[in-house]
Amino acid sequence: MNDKEFTHLTKNGIHMVDVSAKSEQNRLAISSGNIYLKKETIEKIQKSEIKKGNVLTVAQIAGIQAVKNTSDIIPLCHPLRITGIEIDFDVKTEYINCKVTVNSKGQTGVEMEAITGCSVALLTIWDMVKAVEKDSDGQYPNTHISNIEVIKKEKIN
Amino acid sequence: MNDKEFTHLTKNGIHMVDVSAKSEQNRLAISSGNIYLKKETIEKIQKSEIKKGNVLTVAQIAGIQAVKNTSDIIPLCHPLRITGIEIDFDVKTEYINCKVTVNSKGQTGVEMEAITGCSVALLTIWDMVKAVEKDSDGQYPNTHISNIEVIKKEKIN
Amino acid sequence: MNDKEFTHLTKNGIHMVDVSAKSEQNRLAISSGNIYLKKETIEKIQKSEIKKGNVLTVAQIAGIQAVKNTSDIIPLCHPLRITGIEIDFDVKTEYINCKVTVNSKGQTGVEMEAITGCSVALLTIWDMVKAVEKDSDGQYPNTHISNIEVIKKEKIN
Amino acid sequence: MNDKEFTHLTKNGIHMVDVSAKSEQNRLAISSGNIYLKKETIEKIQKSEIKKGNVLTVAQIAGIQAVKNTSDIIPLCHPLRITGIEIDFDVKTEYINCKVTVNSKGQTGVEMEAITGCSVALLTIWDMVKAVEKDSDGQYPNTHISNIEVIKKEKIN
Amino acid sequence: MNDKEFTHLTKNGIHMVDVSAKSEQNRLAISSGNIYLKKETIEKIQKSEIKKGNVLTVAQIAGIQAVKNTSDIIPLCHPLRITGIEIDFDVKTEYINCKVTVNSKGQTGVEMEAITGCSVALLTIWDMVKAVEKDSDGQYPNTHISNIEVIKKEKIN
Amino acid sequence: MNDKEFTHLTKNGIHMVDVSAKSEQNRLAISSGNIYLKKETIEKIQKSEIKKGNVLTVAQIAGIQAVKNTSDIIPLCHPLRITGIEIDFDVKTEYINCKVTVNSKGQTGVEMEAITGCSVALLTIWDMVKAVEKDSDGQYPNTHISNIEVIKKEKIN
Repeated sequence: MNDKEFTHLTKNGIHMVDVSAKSEQNRLAISSGNIYLKKETIEKIQKSEIKKGNVLTVAQIAGIQAVKNTSDIIPLCHPLRITGIEIDFDVKTEYINCKVTVNSKGQTGVEMEAITGCSVALLTIWDMVKAVEKDSDGQYPNTHISNIEVIKKEKIN
Repeated sequence: MNDKEFTHLTKNGIHMVDVSAKSEQNRLAISSGNIYLKKETIEKIQKSEIKKGNVLTVAQIAGIQAVKNTSDIIPLCHPLRITGIEIDFDVKTEYINCKVTVNSKGQTGVEMEAITGCSVALLTIWDMVKAVEKDSDGQYPNTHISNIEVIKKEKIN
Repeated sequence: MNDKEFTHLTKNGIHMVDVSAKSEQNRLAISSGNIYLKKETIEKIQKSEIKKGNVLTVAQIAGIQAVKNTSDIIPLCHPLRITGIEIDFDVKTEYINCKVTVNSKGQTGVEMEAITGCSVALLTIWDMVKAVEKDSDGQYPNTHISNIEVIKKEKIN
Repeated sequence: MNDKEFTHLTKNGIHMVDVSAKSEQNRLAISSGNIYLKKETIEKIQKSEIKKGNVLTVAQIAGIQAVKNTSDIIPLCHPLRITGIEIDFDVKTEYINCKVTVNSKGQTGVEMEAITGCSVALLTIWDMVKAVEKDSDGQYPNTHISNIEVIKKEKIN
Repeated sequence: MNDKEFTHLTKNGIHMVDVSAKSEQNRLAISSGNIYLKKETIEKIQKSEIKKGNVLTVAQIAGIQAVKNTSDIIPLCHPLRITGIEIDFDVKTEYINCKVTVNSKGQTGVEMEAITGCSVALLTIWDMVKAVEKDSDGQYPNTHISNIEVIKKEKIN
Repeated sequence: MNDKEFTHLTKNGIHMVDVSAKSEQNRLAISSGNIYLKKETIEKIQKSEIKKGNVLTVAQIAGIQAVKNTSDIIPLCHPLRITGIEIDFDVKTEYINCKVTVNSKGQTGVEMEAITGCSVALLTIWDMVKAVEKDSDGQYPNTHISNIEVIKKEKIN
């Protein structure tokens, strides 16, 4: 194995790569992911969103907190200076899409922050709709989170 | 909207449902999820797994910590007494499957703990293989996490 | 000084009092507190609350998380099994009142959890309205949080 | 509603405002707040302060930790580089005043850090004196925290 | 290797052992450890302890918080219901001894909590005396923490 | 007492020293420490290290997380921008030596981060080998952590 290929592995195990020689830059990453729910649940969220938007607001807050805490949640991530976080939802008939945009000024990219925030926002939606999403045996035969991906990653000027 | 249907919503917004009247029971939940990687990356993990297993060990630890911290990560989850956590990986040709089994003794189910642990274990694999998984433009055109689901949820006696 | 009077102080400094001999009971505490804002700000919150309720939803979530994390925030508080949390707001002409009800099953009272959650919910409202509440010099001449108190504390059967 | 007025709200809910275009500056904020206690409790603190100062030392540490953790406690606060924290108490006959001075180098003001630290320092005093402050029914009829405010906020360069 | 011997290791890597079949018991562990400092530093602490006790009070609080957070700090530790924590110091001529007593009610022992609390209390003393303990080159040629050990571990009826 | 000598103490108790006037520099600190174990335990780790390295990998991750969280664990430490962390083990016949190298870019030294990471890595080894290290009475008569020290501390250009 070429150690450079897995930058967190060395002959002595794992480490947090030193980035002190890298220049500070404004950086951006955008992630996307979906949670698939029962049509009935989606309809209820859509209606309540109009009235209150609470399910999605709770999910936004959870996602924002997760972006800020990524270096706690993912062991080898560097603590970063996050400068901005946007979380948007697109409620479709069979699923809700979540997009997370993370801005930072620092020495490493923020794609891990973006996908961690997206995963946690979707997990939070699941938590909020458990009561309607469960079947009569308390199981979730169709609920699932899929397509967590990095849509874009870039350095700005 | 019937307030019982979204147990976290009330006419005044959101709350953490009171479970003090529920009896304490041993509970179990099992989640599953996949991360899709380049064949080349999977091969490298398989070989390194034979030698060290570090990528997957780091992912196991991150998943275990996330299970324990679920009530911090997901805003309306109750703090629970987790009694045991198992995280298993099955390395396939095109993806790695992760299964998380959570045991607890308490008043609420642990499916959120199981899917949160699974998501974080898979996110950690992504973080460990960033260097080999990125394309020459620093993008991840094919990498994705999918099929995060609850396989089983039960009360034990 | 009689050491029993300050139960956290001993001749050797401070400690976390041993409660292992106390019986587990369902316990309840209710706190209350107010944030005084400009009438103009209150009006904006009231209108947005009808539309979205976001300021107050964010404050509820922050308060709920603070209740769960009280033993992290207040050094000598015991980690407790919180079973339920309700946070209600009453929007008046000149201030917003916040009431926090905490239920737990455990060996110590939960009044600290209730007042910590109330303080954090009110601080979060402040954070959400900074832009409208500041004067032209960036100062907050009239904004203040007051009357954080414990309304009721009891053991339930 | 004019979205600029509540900078954390957008048409899609809440977000953490991007501050990457703002310049880094040394910043300062000073907060103040009071806890009203029984005269008897104040006297005991004053005497013990002479001997040990423990109640107020514990409160200082809790306040300092809260300042550092403000972006965890208040959902939409940016993680900031705090460079210095001073917490001072003035013990009066009927109340204790707490002043918190926060210095930072960064892109946003630190008034939330200052009032969060002040609130937590005062909550910690309450926790330390519970045993003497409670009445014979275990209630706190007169204890309260009031006048949490931002005294000064400025940019230093 | 016999897997039972390293209870955290399995053929699939690491796990958090399931303890749900173990009975809840009151448990106790006592740890001890020393920090070796310059005589001059010790003298200053002793004098200040008489006046204020601040160095040791800060160390006590840090140790108490670390005991409560052990399951965050040590990856495979179970979250436990800690019921009491005592931290005592014995200031000798050349070192300070720290003893930490942890009580809990739960399904696993608390020796890890006791030694983690002891280590953190001693590290905090180091942090408090850095300015006097450093030599003229900013180095610590003689400062060290030693003899962190578990003095006693027991189940109480 | 000369207040400058204990930089965290003032006439009003403790504070977090303002470092905003200090220049940002790349900084490095290296710590070292040992855990003394039964020869039989060491042999088992050495053999398992060849096969998997799990005990030491878990210890590395715990140490890395502790370095990043030092300002949470040690009350008066500044939050710092850590840029790199290396943790190396040297398995001897009677003990395991751990060396932690911390790089940062900031206004204060990182020796506290280095010794905190080293202590936590060694505590984690203890946790991993409890089952083999305990005697038949469940005690640890010989296990101990010693010689936690700062080997080197420097500013880089």
